[in-house]
Amino acid sequence: MSKPAGCKRWSVAEGHLAKRAGDAEPDGANDVLWLLNASAHEAHVEIMVYFEHRVPAGPYRLTLLPERSRRVRWQDLEGPEPLPIGTDFASVIESDVPIVVQYTRVSPGGTGAMTTIAHWERCGM
Amino acid sequence: MSKPAGCKRWSVAEGHLAKRAGDAEPDGANDVLWLLNASAHEAHVEIMVYFEHRVPAGPYRLTLLPERSRRVRWQDLEGPEPLPIGTDFASVIESDVPIVVQYTRVSPGGTGAMTTIAHWERCGM
Amino acid sequence: MSKPAGCKRWSVAEGHLAKRAGDAEPDGANDVLWLLNASAHEAHVEIMVYFEHRVPAGPYRLTLLPERSRRVRWQDLEGPEPLPIGTDFASVIESDVPIVVQYTRVSPGGTGAMTTIAHWERCGM
Amino acid sequence: MSKPAGCKRWSVAEGHLAKRAGDAEPDGANDVLWLLNASAHEAHVEIMVYFEHRVPAGPYRLTLLPERSRRVRWQDLEGPEPLPIGTDFASVIESDVPIVVQYTRVSPGGTGAMTTIAHWERCGM
Repeated sequence: MSKPAGCKRWSVAEGHLAKRAGDAEPDGANDVLWLLNASAHEAHVEIMVYFEHRVPAGPYRLTLLPERSRRVRWQDLEGPEPLPIGTDFASVIESDVPIVVQYTRVSPGGTGAMTTIAHWERCGM
Repeated sequence: MSKPAGCKRWSVAEGHLAKRAGDAEPDGANDVLWLLNASAHEAHVEIMVYFEHRVPAGPYRLTLLPERSRRVRWQDLEGPEPLPIGTDFASVIESDVPIVVQYTRVSPGGTGAMTTIAHWERCGM
Repeated sequence: MSKPAGCKRWSVAEGHLAKRAGDAEPDGANDVLWLLNASAHEAHVEIMVYFEHRVPAGPYRLTLLPERSRRVRWQDLEGPEPLPIGTDFASVIESDVPIVVQYTRVSPGGTGAMTTIAHWERCGM
Repeated sequence: MSKPAGCKRWSVAEGHLAKRAGDAEPDGANDVLWLLNASAHEAHVEIMVYFEHRVPAGPYRLTLLPERSRRVRWQDLEGPEPLPIGTDFASVIESDVPIVVQYTRVSPGGTGAMTTIAHWERCGM
């Protein structure tokens, strides 16, 4: 079988966790990471989160089943500490098998929707 | 003639098929893949679709005429089975000649519009 | 001086020219290509436009002054024929010096704003 | 430790500084650059800004602390001259260590939100 789609390191420079975990912001904003593991192997994913005024948090660990995709909200991340809320941050997503990462924010009653493919590197390995 | 624009494998980590095939979501959301075949040859495209809770669907096959573009909605895909509706998914788009893929969601009465170039690889071949 | 920023070929798989040249769509949508020539040389740019149901149009030619950026609307393009209106299309943008291309659609009274960096290739030359 | 995430040169072809520094546009639009320095070293960043009708401005200099992210508004940039207001521009962001750059415009009362990863190059160095 040919090499699975994707790369082993992805970065997103924007992120925000709503003020109450599990809830949306006052304007309804909700950040999501879309993750795809198109490979035939489990992907072990580690997410480091970077802030402006404090040391990084993480790694937050996720397992992606083979040939599955997953929608991950920041409040779903379980790790060494809860993610600070009401704060901006960036993230680096590393995986031991190639994956694909897309960042989306949707604000149903607010400022609209936006999405971007994340920055990718460590491809073709 | 020089090599045509684009690459042979593209990935989009987000996708959603509206609850009724051919219709939009309650909020008017509608996903679209924009495909460009700028080459002088027919492009034979295969789309695999990946879910969180079930095995992948596909391949869904499309032919792109030479030097033509095409707007493809998820509900337009014909393949081994209808795409599950009301469900999130990701997709990998492979072509035998270089193409270009862009993902767009528009919600006229809803959460706005968003677009991103897809993740590309297998370029320069 | 070091190599200027950017690449020599860019692709955008989505595009739409409003029904009346110079005007916006009923929903106010307006497509824009943002072009940056950060080099010390004039950039001679050729844009080919690809449709679903007819042969490509172009090349549409633009000159970008050295160290200048430019906002280009589809209706600003002058070439061998006017761009068909009310129709979807894709585009390939080629330049003889490295440039940067970003696609944006804004709908003030409509479905919101969206932007994406275009697909790039022919970099580092 | 492995190479930090990111690249040393990034480009954004769209930008706009609101009419009054520190304020938003009449439609509430506000441009932001999201910067991530995931490395263990300070990042010395230089931003050049390119216009349609005048010579470039800059370099505007920023320092990013190690393992920190930062949200930068155009009006926050301090350099050899204030950025012209009410004007479109593009930017090239260079850093002496790898960083990640994302461009976002949010218009709370206006045309919605949009984001894109910037064009990257000079990676893997």
